[in-house]
Amino acid sequence: MLTSSSAPGAEYAPDEGPRQNLGALLRHVHLSGPLSRAELAERMNLNRSTIMALTTRLSAAGLVRERQPAAAGRSGRPSLVVTPAADRVYVLAFDVAVDRLVAARVALGGEILERRVAKRSRSGPDLDAVVAVLAGFGRDLHRNAPPGAVCAGAGASYCGMIRPGDGMVRYGPYLGWVDQAFGAELGEQLGLGLPVPVGNEAHLGALAEHGRGAGVGVQNLIYLHGDVGVGGGIIVGGEVLDGEAGYGCEVGHMLVNPHGGRPCSCGARGCLEAEVGERALLAEAGRPDGLFGRDAVRAVVADAGRGDPAAQRALARIGDWLGIGVANLINLFNPGMLVFGGMMRDVYAGAEPQIRKRIADHVLPVSRERVRLSVSAFDDDTTLLGAAELAFADLLANPLGATALPGTAA
Amino acid sequence: MLTSSSAPGAEYAPDEGPRQNLGALLRHVHLSGPLSRAELAERMNLNRSTIMALTTRLSAAGLVRERQPAAAGRSGRPSLVVTPAADRVYVLAFDVAVDRLVAARVALGGEILERRVAKRSRSGPDLDAVVAVLAGFGRDLHRNAPPGAVCAGAGASYCGMIRPGDGMVRYGPYLGWVDQAFGAELGEQLGLGLPVPVGNEAHLGALAEHGRGAGVGVQNLIYLHGDVGVGGGIIVGGEVLDGEAGYGCEVGHMLVNPHGGRPCSCGARGCLEAEVGERALLAEAGRPDGLFGRDAVRAVVADAGRGDPAAQRALARIGDWLGIGVANLINLFNPGMLVFGGMMRDVYAGAEPQIRKRIADHVLPVSRERVRLSVSAFDDDTTLLGAAELAFADLLANPLGATALPGTAA
Repeated sequence: MLTSSSAPGAEYAPDEGPRQNLGALLRHVHLSGPLSRAELAERMNLNRSTIMALTTRLSAAGLVRERQPAAAGRSGRPSLVVTPAADRVYVLAFDVAVDRLVAARVALGGEILERRVAKRSRSGPDLDAVVAVLAGFGRDLHRNAPPGAVCAGAGASYCGMIRPGDGMVRYGPYLGWVDQAFGAELGEQLGLGLPVPVGNEAHLGALAEHGRGAGVGVQNLIYLHGDVGVGGGIIVGGEVLDGEAGYGCEVGHMLVNPHGGRPCSCGARGCLEAEVGERALLAEAGRPDGLFGRDAVRAVVADAGRGDPAAQRALARIGDWLGIGVANLINLFNPGMLVFGGMMRDVYAGAEPQIRKRIADHVLPVSRERVRLSVSAFDDDTTLLGAAELAFADLLANPLGATALPGTAA
Repeated sequence: MLTSSSAPGAEYAPDEGPRQNLGALLRHVHLSGPLSRAELAERMNLNRSTIMALTTRLSAAGLVRERQPAAAGRSGRPSLVVTPAADRVYVLAFDVAVDRLVAARVALGGEILERRVAKRSRSGPDLDAVVAVLAGFGRDLHRNAPPGAVCAGAGASYCGMIRPGDGMVRYGPYLGWVDQAFGAELGEQLGLGLPVPVGNEAHLGALAEHGRGAGVGVQNLIYLHGDVGVGGGIIVGGEVLDGEAGYGCEVGHMLVNPHGGRPCSCGARGCLEAEVGERALLAEAGRPDGLFGRDAVRAVVADAGRGDPAAQRALARIGDWLGIGVANLINLFNPGMLVFGGMMRDVYAGAEPQIRKRIADHVLPVSRERVRLSVSAFDDDTTLLGAAELAFADLLANPLGATALPGTAA
């Protein structure tokens, strides 16, 4: 155990106890923002002298700052407030959605400092083109970082099924990718000597909502992400459900309409994402064939709000199918919260009554007595922030080891 | 850490390390049967002198026996074989299914030593009557135990939704129970001073298959149990999925047939258990209204095997709906194995092609590349053996503490 006699700058003994405590403390301020040493002592169940030793060490490494609290609440010596060094430590986060590519510099503490966005047409999706755009964005963002700022890692979110460990896209239906070495290619083209771990967008969205969003403290949480299709990130007992090989949570291909349902990108009919995804909503609302994208979806929701009957019927129908999927998930997972993100946030806003009716009709009261429904806390940035969490993982696992990472801005 | 200098009978220091190791070692021989000290050392990643100290302690407490191996395989001193003390240590296991009540004495090591079974009619299910029968069985079994045998605990499986901690039946659809204090009542009427923890039958079935059955070593496993309805026990990363309040895995009320499905006991229509349960199978096969029970189900499967067209059509239809449920579960959980138990074992035997077709049609190849389908390893005893595991839990958590439990046979 690290004691208060460990002076800053003393040789770091690679012992699991202090490393875990350093990581845990840094994670607390990274996810929760400024916390006093007293609050940290209580959260971590450690005494104040141990907390002081940890913060002194992290402060010396440039990962946190300590300051006097704005106003001392009670008598006695006020507890210093520990803040993540958001101006000094950042990661590069990438987000590959069906319609757009995003890259961002995200600060320790979770603030998006700067971003680059490219809209993409849906034709001709191609690994090299996607990687070239994102790598260019990433290098540009890295160059723009202030002098002395440190890049602690990189991470990417992708709208498909990702092999854990090497960032291989096993299947990306709307981009037509099968077994593409996305993470490795992006890392190489980025040229910063940083690996780029990749995660499924909804898995990462669940991490972001669980860590710092709508579901903080909820140990059993389901995040539903609507892009063109529908993805799921399911947290069971505090951990994302990966399953046997990392491909769990495929809510989009749950069969909900076995009697002549809509065709799905996977080749089957009646999958949840075929019945509630962007294409279904726009088709039901009678929108012209060529129309697509988040703005088109939002226009339907807005029109429904203004009383447009076709838009209302479309939303009610989509909400009914979504309600079936949601009811099934509540029966299976007995979650504390269900979070609607991406396009599902818009659908939920317009079809909450249909969703709640299906839950009432198809979930036993015992199974639903604790579940809350919520929308994503981050507008369209949930998956990007999830990618940032992936990028911060190494730093948070070993704060003092990871500062030796390459990628420091000149 | 316990060392080889700890003589048997020495005062037991309540230190987590050795207690956990004692429990882990006892669990290994309880679940796997006889193991040599060398095998235990390898499994537990401990040195042989530590293993010897642990086995010496467990042996002195009468929980294991050590003997020379039947044939020494190699030169050198043979490694003693450690065996659970199945003739001395047992639990009382209870199983409340819709049609029958079972009580058994189950030995350390998992062998069912003696049992009592009562068939029940489906009318007039009543807490007091069920508890009276089971408590009588339990006392009788306890009296029948040989002199010097030790009862290490009790546990019960119930076909409904159970509140963790106090064995309260929140909902038992086919028996009509709502909020009945089953575990507490059974413990009191049993009169042995033993608490009776209660678990959902399919959750416990999953534990049994995972621990010593079809799915040993499979960390992501789905157990489907057919009684009159259909229950699920889902193991995620080695742990049963409880969800926020213990009511996860309600696969039976997954809506699979939203277009005029069969009525379900829960009040909805088209639930998985309404479409694939006993009533659906017997009705589809054209069996007379009053017929029910496992034998009637098996008769349909047997008739289908002999070429009876009505029975074949019924099984194919039930298998198709079951296949939809199974496909949805594989998409969501990316499991390593799916185990069919209870009546689902019979249905699987007769409808495997339909189930496999739905999996092929509705599960992405990436999600199903590692999944195996299996049947329960324990015929009709899976849930009873799961109840026994619940009963052994305290002993395995703290082997030397738990031998002080009451319930030693006179």
